[in-house]
Amino acid sequence: MSSPENMTVTTTPTIGVFDSGFGGLTVLRALLAHMPHARFAFIGDTARLPYGSKSQRTIARYAAQSARFLVNEQGAKFLVIACNTASALALDAIKAAVSVPVLGVIEPGAEAAAAASRTGDVLVIATDATVQSHAYAAACHARGLRALEKACPLLVPLVEEGWTDTADATEAPAAHAAAQVAITAEVIRIYLDELNAEAAALGMNPDTLVLGCTHYPLLRSLFEHAVPRGMRVIDSAESAAETAVRAFGQQDTEALPLAPQALRCFATDSVEKFERLGSRFLGRPVGNVELVDLGG
Amino acid sequence: MSSPENMTVTTTPTIGVFDSGFGGLTVLRALLAHMPHARFAFIGDTARLPYGSKSQRTIARYAAQSARFLVNEQGAKFLVIACNTASALALDAIKAAVSVPVLGVIEPGAEAAAAASRTGDVLVIATDATVQSHAYAAACHARGLRALEKACPLLVPLVEEGWTDTADATEAPAAHAAAQVAITAEVIRIYLDELNAEAAALGMNPDTLVLGCTHYPLLRSLFEHAVPRGMRVIDSAESAAETAVRAFGQQDTEALPLAPQALRCFATDSVEKFERLGSRFLGRPVGNVELVDLGG
Repeated sequence: MSSPENMTVTTTPTIGVFDSGFGGLTVLRALLAHMPHARFAFIGDTARLPYGSKSQRTIARYAAQSARFLVNEQGAKFLVIACNTASALALDAIKAAVSVPVLGVIEPGAEAAAAASRTGDVLVIATDATVQSHAYAAACHARGLRALEKACPLLVPLVEEGWTDTADATEAPAAHAAAQVAITAEVIRIYLDELNAEAAALGMNPDTLVLGCTHYPLLRSLFEHAVPRGMRVIDSAESAAETAVRAFGQQDTEALPLAPQALRCFATDSVEKFERLGSRFLGRPVGNVELVDLGG
Repeated sequence: MSSPENMTVTTTPTIGVFDSGFGGLTVLRALLAHMPHARFAFIGDTARLPYGSKSQRTIARYAAQSARFLVNEQGAKFLVIACNTASALALDAIKAAVSVPVLGVIEPGAEAAAAASRTGDVLVIATDATVQSHAYAAACHARGLRALEKACPLLVPLVEEGWTDTADATEAPAAHAAAQVAITAEVIRIYLDELNAEAAALGMNPDTLVLGCTHYPLLRSLFEHAVPRGMRVIDSAESAAETAVRAFGQQDTEALPLAPQALRCFATDSVEKFERLGSRFLGRPVGNVELVDLGG
């Protein structure tokens, strides 16, 4: 396996981005913003959603299949695992399955938290599966931080319903959209109240909140309004993209000839939902999503 | 296959109840209330949740395995499929797999709507998978009703978070619990507003609302407060239990000797979540949930 530093780039490089669903499009969005000459291939393993309820062995097998598809069939020279569950449970299996550098979302999130926090106490919100893996707590602990994790199961369905932003609301009338966003803001307030109360009871003094789910970037401005004054909000999707750009972006601008940015999106099922919701996550149209069969 | 009418009951009968998860415990709760001398075996196929994202063929195979377990290993003489997805997509496969009477939740719900509605226009709320199957619309249409269906993806996670009832809130302080229930009430108001507006645009005059998901009985009182004046709320879990009692309850009281009610609960995985949340759905402790392996 080669490290990002000793790669030889002879043509416009392709970066492979993998998620179990389409939440990872928020990581791709951040990558697209930073790398104007790269080619991207994204795959969402939507047929086998959700990974969170499956065993580590099954998740590792599924994730390795997607990683091989990106490297062997799409020519990816670098993989970003834009899925917290797969990053937590299958990163080693993916690294063993392919011969290109592989980056998950958890280490960059913890790294950004370590850079941001002065008190050394951080809060992490994520899905139930990610919290149960305690991968963020371990990655934070390895950097000398104390981390308190909380599962927030209502946030993913609120994002998928589109109750996130009145400007985003294309289907609902304005009054409805405002009421919907008010609900999401109130849900966030309740979750943060519970988390801050628990942190206080543990004698912690948190000054940093990590958004540990690829759906949560769509809630970032609501979180920034809701956190106590002075608390920093770290978006692990953005942190992963920045880390990828540092590792790989240099090659991007050195590659000759400089090609225009290109993107292909693949899904193993549910292309309809991917196309319908994906554009909101990507911040631009996802285009045609190609159906791909990875086998068992 | 025998019909309920020509069964011979020689000992206390066992009624098998099947769900892909534990939401079907609301159907079991209604059955327990009506049948004081029956024995019950409940299985939740929690290892293979959620059924909604799987193909009909896979759902049929999984559901048939659970049905055979209830009949062949637990001696069930009657099966209630307390799962809307399996009722919509696998009822024929289950009936073919076992030799006892089988009852789903959709036909009883539609039957109760037909009995309740005077205008002939009914609203149905359910999960995305159930709505996409249009099984309720078809069952209503077969009874001369017009049905408008709506998926309400936020309601299952709200129920599973326990944001349903201030009296239920054992973990949250009272002020938090009130704020949580207020959110659920507001989500219900928004969904019903959207549904009623769509019905009005179609020229419908609905007077009946069917709760087409086994999680929704925990929201029944919130729905009864939220519907327009005069609209009836039909709970398909309760309707299925009443139908089962009519078909099977007679044998219950005729069985000699009359035994006390008994209940065994099985799950294929996630016993922890089942035990933690199940009691709220069942309205009493679920006791020890036994882990069972159904194979493939």
